[in-house]
Amino acid sequence: MKITMAHGSGGNATKELIDQCFKEKFANRVLNKMEDAAVLTLTGPKIALTTDSFVVTPLSFPGGDIGKLAVCGTVNDLLMMGASPRYLTAGFILEEGLELATLEGIVSSMQRAAEEAKVTIVAGDTKVVQGKGGIYINTAGLGLIEHERDLGAAQVTAGDVIILSGSLGNHHACIMADRMGIQSNIQSDCAPLNEIVENLLAAGMDVKAMRDVTRGGLATVLNEIAEAAGAGINIDEEKLPVDPEVGSFCEILGLDPLYMANEGKLVCFVGAADAAKALAIIKQSRYGQGAKVIGQVIAGAKQVTVTTRLGGRRILDILYGEGLPRIC
Amino acid sequence: MKITMAHGSGGNATKELIDQCFKEKFANRVLNKMEDAAVLTLTGPKIALTTDSFVVTPLSFPGGDIGKLAVCGTVNDLLMMGASPRYLTAGFILEEGLELATLEGIVSSMQRAAEEAKVTIVAGDTKVVQGKGGIYINTAGLGLIEHERDLGAAQVTAGDVIILSGSLGNHHACIMADRMGIQSNIQSDCAPLNEIVENLLAAGMDVKAMRDVTRGGLATVLNEIAEAAGAGINIDEEKLPVDPEVGSFCEILGLDPLYMANEGKLVCFVGAADAAKALAIIKQSRYGQGAKVIGQVIAGAKQVTVTTRLGGRRILDILYGEGLPRIC
Repeated sequence: MKITMAHGSGGNATKELIDQCFKEKFANRVLNKMEDAAVLTLTGPKIALTTDSFVVTPLSFPGGDIGKLAVCGTVNDLLMMGASPRYLTAGFILEEGLELATLEGIVSSMQRAAEEAKVTIVAGDTKVVQGKGGIYINTAGLGLIEHERDLGAAQVTAGDVIILSGSLGNHHACIMADRMGIQSNIQSDCAPLNEIVENLLAAGMDVKAMRDVTRGGLATVLNEIAEAAGAGINIDEEKLPVDPEVGSFCEILGLDPLYMANEGKLVCFVGAADAAKALAIIKQSRYGQGAKVIGQVIAGAKQVTVTTRLGGRRILDILYGEGLPRIC
Repeated sequence: MKITMAHGSGGNATKELIDQCFKEKFANRVLNKMEDAAVLTLTGPKIALTTDSFVVTPLSFPGGDIGKLAVCGTVNDLLMMGASPRYLTAGFILEEGLELATLEGIVSSMQRAAEEAKVTIVAGDTKVVQGKGGIYINTAGLGLIEHERDLGAAQVTAGDVIILSGSLGNHHACIMADRMGIQSNIQSDCAPLNEIVENLLAAGMDVKAMRDVTRGGLATVLNEIAEAAGAGINIDEEKLPVDPEVGSFCEILGLDPLYMANEGKLVCFVGAADAAKALAIIKQSRYGQGAKVIGQVIAGAKQVTVTTRLGGRRILDILYGEGLPRIC
């Protein structure tokens, strides 16, 4: 069966789609009420709120699909602010002709990712547009902030140590290889980063700021932090973790892993005294085994520099141009 | 200037678009931080959370545009649960080729609607896809529930009086007339319903449930309520408010206002003792002047019936088939 415009009518066909596809998989006490909004009682006053839309093609790829991405992406944005992710909303824009079986697979994948990330999908919406059988998903997320710490780029100061939780470029290389029809074992690193963040905060590490490395790559993230912190950043090219297969892929195609997207990696700014312990904590987590200290924050101009393998130093700018379209 | 794929890269072009278009118009203390999520401190533990995507064509129409709709639609969903709307997130999916001036107009319209509805846009996201210069907007909304009342379809019981806040079909007829190139003075009724809901709750009216009348029309909404309440509903055809120009439009095209979408009307279920007072309160509000009692909840089978102008009675089913595609 394929999605038709009738599934977006708000009438009987919409109801059938919701009952058959969404209600069964996302079933929970709040969503089941099917009211205009979910009513929730929070356990604390301080929250984080975020939103992200996902337009990736192909819809499914080694290591994940658009549904897993839509949950992990928003969960990770909440985690980066030190929040404990709790609730997601999901807005689906379906293109006419989408196979119902494809949608069901995506919805199942979202539910599995939500379970792993310990979030509940409490509200949803479905629209149908003309098109070629594609799908866009928006997720908004609410997380609780259960500590008094003030995390954010503005807290970063000279001397802070920069830890990257694992290898660069995996999601980007995976999507690109798939589109180009290149056979490879490269998998997307799409994953929820709850464990890393929870363990860092529970251990009382002096974390100043965290960012997940997505569109625009590590280079763009570091420049945003340098700008907001009013400090410089220097990273060491030699220490950047890149998986061998991704490295070869980048060499052949002339790609720079510093500008490539991940979907399950974070960069973390930690006070120097806690750096070694923080690194050890990250490395003990499922998705942080490849973590490395990659550089530090330095006094001076708001710019990012790289110490190259040959010992030189170059300025690392943010991404200019297109990047890879529809990577997330 | 037109939107290009580079505006979705996450790099420099994205930053420029956000700085020039979104940051300036939506400027507020929270959004300006440009972190991965907005950090907020709520004044109470009970909240409502909702999401809605908007795919309407044309993007602009008499009485509103997709931006105004995206704010009002989500604000109204929060209000229907008795919540006081506070924060919105906004996810933009832009099609390549969209004129920047069009986007700026939509963003300005969102900001005006947000001001009227007393909500702050605290988080956002922008993606770019191939296409024909269109735009989709998702808004998620958070509202505070500052009372102990339990509103919802399950609270509705036999004897409750049904009040409709104004004329049916205006948004639907407006979009349809525009697409068909029919000259008319019909305007969309797109509006935030804060005043009506706040005044009803502040006066302590015995409100059981509220729903805004959107996709699927009043017929679909009433059937959903009857189903959830486990009761029957009877409405009086003669009492249904329809503006003369919308009425003529429907007659010519053979449309039934009961299945047509509004974007600024609500239907409200009130204990019989408070019905007259609740009606008076709604009629005093800017967007409720045309309010009418249209029927009541009755014991018996979970179905909706209409007493026709000739005194007969017919069953009113939910919308079957397509409705009008991309009406919201």
